[in-house]
Amino acid sequence: MLVATVVGQVWSTKKEASLEGLRFLVVQPYVRGAQTAETMVVVDPIGADLGERVLVVFGRAARHAIGRGHDIGFQTAIVGIVDGMDLDGERVGQTVADDKERA
Amino acid sequence: MLVATVVGQVWSTKKEASLEGLRFLVVQPYVRGAQTAETMVVVDPIGADLGERVLVVFGRAARHAIGRGHDIGFQTAIVGIVDGMDLDGERVGQTVADDKERA
Amino acid sequence: MLVATVVGQVWSTKKEASLEGLRFLVVQPYVRGAQTAETMVVVDPIGADLGERVLVVFGRAARHAIGRGHDIGFQTAIVGIVDGMDLDGERVGQTVADDKERA
Amino acid sequence: MLVATVVGQVWSTKKEASLEGLRFLVVQPYVRGAQTAETMVVVDPIGADLGERVLVVFGRAARHAIGRGHDIGFQTAIVGIVDGMDLDGERVGQTVADDKERA
Amino acid sequence: MLVATVVGQVWSTKKEASLEGLRFLVVQPYVRGAQTAETMVVVDPIGADLGERVLVVFGRAARHAIGRGHDIGFQTAIVGIVDGMDLDGERVGQTVADDKERA
Repeated sequence: MLVATVVGQVWSTKKEASLEGLRFLVVQPYVRGAQTAETMVVVDPIGADLGERVLVVFGRAARHAIGRGHDIGFQTAIVGIVDGMDLDGERVGQTVADDKERA
Repeated sequence: MLVATVVGQVWSTKKEASLEGLRFLVVQPYVRGAQTAETMVVVDPIGADLGERVLVVFGRAARHAIGRGHDIGFQTAIVGIVDGMDLDGERVGQTVADDKERA
Repeated sequence: MLVATVVGQVWSTKKEASLEGLRFLVVQPYVRGAQTAETMVVVDPIGADLGERVLVVFGRAARHAIGRGHDIGFQTAIVGIVDGMDLDGERVGQTVADDKERA
Repeated sequence: MLVATVVGQVWSTKKEASLEGLRFLVVQPYVRGAQTAETMVVVDPIGADLGERVLVVFGRAARHAIGRGHDIGFQTAIVGIVDGMDLDGERVGQTVADDKERA
Repeated sequence: MLVATVVGQVWSTKKEASLEGLRFLVVQPYVRGAQTAETMVVVDPIGADLGERVLVVFGRAARHAIGRGHDIGFQTAIVGIVDGMDLDGERVGQTVADDKERA
């Protein structure tokens, strides 16, 4: 239920069996006109690229998106690639690079 | 379980199948006498306008409001348009514009 | 699972059908020796007054307290009126007014 | 899922029926080398004393610990009394008093 | 759904029966280029060492990872040891020591 930017990837060899083969990305919540240092890890069932803004959800919604049933050791996931946002008339693009190009 | 102000809309073409056709708004939590930079994304099953204050809920309550059952990739939603609030005798209107008009 | 103070009421005419007839209060979390600007909206099945300190819960516990089953578009509720608190020997009253009277 | 310190007790006469007879404590999350003003209310099914550090959990885990089934109006509880913690080689005791004695 | 660093261990003799024999670690959320004082307690079903970065999850995902069913008094767990992260091209290692060695 938030927009976040993909800032990286995380690898884990020794992990819970139900997580085998999943792609784990590191994202940072989008905050208007500010930088945040907080990161979270999400499963990416969609194929997002570094720098892209994405829709992130939690809990049951995330397990639904991961698509391996509810007996799984993770509960955050990407459910969409953001095409763009309109915030009080200001346009926010798919990536930080898009924003700079337009400015 | 919070009052938030609708500040924009977000579009996503490449997304989880269960989200097809839903309207995604960007809202900012209402904080007394303060501005917040935090945003969240909510499904709007009600039809809120930019600038309106709305009631936002999470989890099962949000899935109930979205009305597509519990196998869905989202868990935040608008459940009401705020007519107004009374906070310690101070009146807060439906929109920021309402507040300014009254002031 | 927190103590909050009732600071106001919120009205919503256009809302999710399952919320018809419920009373929505605005509360602020109790923070020791501090003022918070954060507010949240709760259903009040008990009848709390403006200024009273109350016990607030979330999720399934809140739906239980609301008493309309689990297919409902809200997930925060008041479950008790606070008579008082003892915090490290300091007495905190039912309302802010109580505290001032005693001081 | 956090360590907190018991700082007080809260009383409520007018409350949700399912909470009758439960003991409500006020705790403050443990933060390394810092003081926090945030408090939360927890059910104590174990018998913790003022000043003791305890393990606090939320949601289903808390309802399990309370032991009255899942139709109950609360969702935070103490599940253990902390004997001590080792944090990067530094020893943190069962109470703030223990820490001072050792220092 | 976050990366955290193992900073210690916590012991509890007097605890909820369902927690008997579990290993409780204290972790601190990873925040880019910053230190956090916030700690949380997690069950470690995997065998993480002090200083290692780990993947931490909550709720149903954590109960799944603990592997004792859903009638248990805890809801946070480690689900993986982090091999490393790539954040905007910067490499973050398995431990803080790894990062220093590379620098």
